[in-house]
Amino acid sequence: MAAWGQRLAGVRGVLLDISGVLFDGAEGSGVPIAGSVEAVARLKRSRLKVRFCTNESQKSLGDLVRLLQQLGFDISEGEVTAPAPATCLILKERGLRPYLLIHDGIRSEFDQIDTSNPNCVVIADAGESFSYQNMNKAFQVLMELENPVLISLGKGRYYKETSGLMLDVGAYVKALEYACGIEAEVVGKPSPEYFKSALQEMGLEAHQAVMIGDDIVGDVGGAQQCGMRALQVRTGKFRARGHQPVSP
Amino acid sequence: MAAWGQRLAGVRGVLLDISGVLFDGAEGSGVPIAGSVEAVARLKRSRLKVRFCTNESQKSLGDLVRLLQQLGFDISEGEVTAPAPATCLILKERGLRPYLLIHDGIRSEFDQIDTSNPNCVVIADAGESFSYQNMNKAFQVLMELENPVLISLGKGRYYKETSGLMLDVGAYVKALEYACGIEAEVVGKPSPEYFKSALQEMGLEAHQAVMIGDDIVGDVGGAQQCGMRALQVRTGKFRARGHQPVSP
Repeated sequence: MAAWGQRLAGVRGVLLDISGVLFDGAEGSGVPIAGSVEAVARLKRSRLKVRFCTNESQKSLGDLVRLLQQLGFDISEGEVTAPAPATCLILKERGLRPYLLIHDGIRSEFDQIDTSNPNCVVIADAGESFSYQNMNKAFQVLMELENPVLISLGKGRYYKETSGLMLDVGAYVKALEYACGIEAEVVGKPSPEYFKSALQEMGLEAHQAVMIGDDIVGDVGGAQQCGMRALQVRTGKFRARGHQPVSP
Repeated sequence: MAAWGQRLAGVRGVLLDISGVLFDGAEGSGVPIAGSVEAVARLKRSRLKVRFCTNESQKSLGDLVRLLQQLGFDISEGEVTAPAPATCLILKERGLRPYLLIHDGIRSEFDQIDTSNPNCVVIADAGESFSYQNMNKAFQVLMELENPVLISLGKGRYYKETSGLMLDVGAYVKALEYACGIEAEVVGKPSPEYFKSALQEMGLEAHQAVMIGDDIVGDVGGAQQCGMRALQVRTGKFRARGHQPVSP
């Protein structure tokens, strides 16, 4: 293995995943991962540009940043790339009125969106709201449409909370894709648009940046496909053996 | 199109799907499809052998047959091939102790099965029991296993109740397959073992039988792959246009 200096030659910016890298979440709160508060502080004191890249879709951006600040992180809303605001832009541009299969914690992000007479479905990490009733409603909306549009905030398989591994939005996306015979549009990691938008915010080219995450598909694979370097941490959902996802 | 006489030459037996062919289900009851009670009666008066082939996994075999009898059908338990009894045989043979992600209506079929300290997951059409909590429990059981075993009673995409289209077990199987990076073992249609077992009960070869169902994948595709002929009815989940499933 090449020395670290060589492997990171030319890097001018770092993209940091949040959940599983900075902290392990729990219902409404979380615990910082050992060393991560200080690591962020050191990165921000260095000459490197830092951006936080999350698929968080249970909490609004404001709530997430407030929580991280309470845990001791030096972070502000303007430093975070998150899928909900990007989704709202897409909905407005295309005149889409979503049925929202989402967590109550993120509903405020969609306050300005018309949800009457839905002509698409937006799905995010809905947690307990992934009831049979809600899934069926989303399914029925899609089946009524001539050209069904399913927009997914990320496509993660699972994530880690302090209480254990939890199913993520990607599993429920697969369920709707299979039932309807369609393919979802993913907003967030690992979509190339997501990484490009984060790089643009940083004013960097792909070869100048390294993505640090705990998801081998969403973080590492997605970033590498955009020409970035990537590192997988051994915290969060990382598992040394077993059923580590290897393909998207 | 060849004349019916030609297309059905040599047929000595008929396999009938139940839901969407004989009746449209509703919570705890159902409505016979027009003409189906009389069609079954005529088939049974003919020289053809008749067998009922269902992936029903919300009701026990006893409850299903009692309901059909109440609706006027000439049917008995011994004439039905259903996935739950076949699953119990597999569990016993392989020493598997399942976490049961199933509807309460079918739980009695598993009365004789050891479910302590689960080493596999059995998933069926659980309906309202497809809660996030139950799905997560199944996911966690699978992720703890060195060699995760997921057994699915059928793999249907959706079915029709009187209230509308409903997500079927196949959608939730896809969710767990994706999250765990595994593939489920399917007991029931469209698995070849299921059709072979039904043919055996009838004492017929595949080329002597025709399957009649409303599911182009589970019924028609599955039967054809076993060398049988198959007919799709225009009732139940049949849709003339739109997102009709075309591949398993």
